[in-house]
Amino acid sequence: MAHPVADMPNPEHIEHDSMLSRSPAELHYATYQDVESLVPADLYDKSEEEVLRSYHSGNVLPLLVFLGLDESRAEALRYKSYAGAPYFALDITPKGGLAQKAQKIIDAMEAKGLSFQNTRTITSLSPGDAAIYAQSRAIVDWNIRNAFCGTCGHPTISIHAGTKRACPPTDLGLVENGASAGAARPPCHTRTTISNLSFPRTDPTIIVAVLSHDSNRILLGRQKRWPPNWYSTLAGFIEPGESVEDAVRREVWEESGVTLSRVLIHSTQPWPYPANLMIGAIAQVAKPENEKISLVHDPELEDARWFETAEVEEAMRVGTSALGSEPGPEYKQGGLRLPPKTAIAYQLISAVVKGEYLGAPHESKI
Amino acid sequence: MAHPVADMPNPEHIEHDSMLSRSPAELHYATYQDVESLVPADLYDKSEEEVLRSYHSGNVLPLLVFLGLDESRAEALRYKSYAGAPYFALDITPKGGLAQKAQKIIDAMEAKGLSFQNTRTITSLSPGDAAIYAQSRAIVDWNIRNAFCGTCGHPTISIHAGTKRACPPTDLGLVENGASAGAARPPCHTRTTISNLSFPRTDPTIIVAVLSHDSNRILLGRQKRWPPNWYSTLAGFIEPGESVEDAVRREVWEESGVTLSRVLIHSTQPWPYPANLMIGAIAQVAKPENEKISLVHDPELEDARWFETAEVEEAMRVGTSALGSEPGPEYKQGGLRLPPKTAIAYQLISAVVKGEYLGAPHESKI
Repeated sequence: MAHPVADMPNPEHIEHDSMLSRSPAELHYATYQDVESLVPADLYDKSEEEVLRSYHSGNVLPLLVFLGLDESRAEALRYKSYAGAPYFALDITPKGGLAQKAQKIIDAMEAKGLSFQNTRTITSLSPGDAAIYAQSRAIVDWNIRNAFCGTCGHPTISIHAGTKRACPPTDLGLVENGASAGAARPPCHTRTTISNLSFPRTDPTIIVAVLSHDSNRILLGRQKRWPPNWYSTLAGFIEPGESVEDAVRREVWEESGVTLSRVLIHSTQPWPYPANLMIGAIAQVAKPENEKISLVHDPELEDARWFETAEVEEAMRVGTSALGSEPGPEYKQGGLRLPPKTAIAYQLISAVVKGEYLGAPHESKI
Repeated sequence: MAHPVADMPNPEHIEHDSMLSRSPAELHYATYQDVESLVPADLYDKSEEEVLRSYHSGNVLPLLVFLGLDESRAEALRYKSYAGAPYFALDITPKGGLAQKAQKIIDAMEAKGLSFQNTRTITSLSPGDAAIYAQSRAIVDWNIRNAFCGTCGHPTISIHAGTKRACPPTDLGLVENGASAGAARPPCHTRTTISNLSFPRTDPTIIVAVLSHDSNRILLGRQKRWPPNWYSTLAGFIEPGESVEDAVRREVWEESGVTLSRVLIHSTQPWPYPANLMIGAIAQVAKPENEKISLVHDPELEDARWFETAEVEEAMRVGTSALGSEPGPEYKQGGLRLPPKTAIAYQLISAVVKGEYLGAPHESKI
């Protein structure tokens, strides 16, 4: 079984994902002065213990995430052994008790010519900005999805500068409301042990380029919603208790019926929609009888097919593009289309064509 | 920053983790007859839509997880294109409305000579049984930790044979209790989009064996709670928006101060306590000045140190053991101790010593 595949943005599954920016090709960095009305200067002053002890369900605090330091600007801030300009992500969605303040910030930003850009612009950003946006989006989104404790159902609060959520044992708001149990909330397992639920979630997925037993063909698949002739590598979520290697074998079998022999992990790419980590592999089939395509196990793919290496190489040259874009001028109608160079899918196809790890195609290795 | 390290079982963090078995070296497989009183024969008969529509907060159903088919026993069951003996995991923790039935099953099992075995026995199991137990434990544990919806705080229910949790839009129990809103529960984001919270969580971690610039030394670290002279590879959780390669570089720098050059992913191992996936890497430092040890960034390790390859090779021969066990008879007091061969940590150290990917030690490659 597979959840929706992770290698390409899928508009139905994208949430909490716009950023205030002047154009899709750049991030706009606001200053503290720009958001001062929403962010108290002492927001991070309390220790975890103090924050938990003083939890009051009637108080609403903004979600501010510390991202890290730009060490090339060492003069900006010095703290212990660290020096650099600190970066933060702030959720300015107008909601609850902070709606008015957040809206005012948005209005002021829009008056400066900024507007909300769609998250897909991540591929138009510079690598540095894309990394900062990916980290921001992943952590803010995780906080929003986990406003309540999965184990006991009560509200959680953001601590550790946005990178942890805790389930407070007491609520000073309960005292004011005259609850008989005083300030105590019901017991929760996440408070007495270290629970993974308290920390950001990352969903590991596999994505794999598969070479035929004779090294002459590459296995690619396509989803129905993709444009005609557009194919990509197979992909899917890793299941509980699986190794990456086993997940690659299972997904390829489920989606295409093909049984793999060698599986090697090649490289990885985070994809923060909402929290995927794509682990790229290259793999090979050992025997011709293991190459038979079957789509009966999983309705995910509309088609899976072996393509001659030469056809794939030609498509890498003329037929690559992002999902919503057109291929280059040399592309001939009806020819194979592939993901862009920035996608790990392309990099894996390229690795297989070049013979990385598995040896060069056109020479049988098995 | 790093959450508790993942490569070794840590008793403080282990939960929901005992199994009924005759000895720590084997799993006991109960039959449907053994658990019939707890598991209605029609438990899986309804579609996801029907289960959601008929949700009644007053009804308590047992958590039964479908694990897969043993295809070597094709005669057991045939369904569509599948044939084999189905395996399930059942949570028999005595709790709530099912406590009495569950306790009766436990009593009957114990009367047969079975008892609850500690989860650490996973390393004593055969590889096949260990894989089945790891999958069972991971999925049961995830269900237990996520009894409530992280996004809206209301109870979730198990669907898809234990591999998905859904937040029902209605509760027939509300009608009986005379709620004015009829059967409707408050709106929740997880119902209108595909949310990762509905699917099992796996926490990807990195674990890495690091070779010095001259290929003559290996970087290892130790935690305070480990026995004297016991060292292992460095490890830590992958953070949001990070690639595996970047996480390796960050963790090694945080825990040891060492700055890496090449990072290659070697192999992976699931570690279901509660849901870790260890992604093993091997790496190398490019320049002597990047090898300086510093422990100031992270209090996780008590020590990190470069060991000569010869000393590591000797420890691989005489000094390996599980954390709670003693090394072999040839081990000399005060010598380096290492994790056992079954741990991915050992496999990575072995890969570096053998020169896999990075080239053989004792010859400078940079």
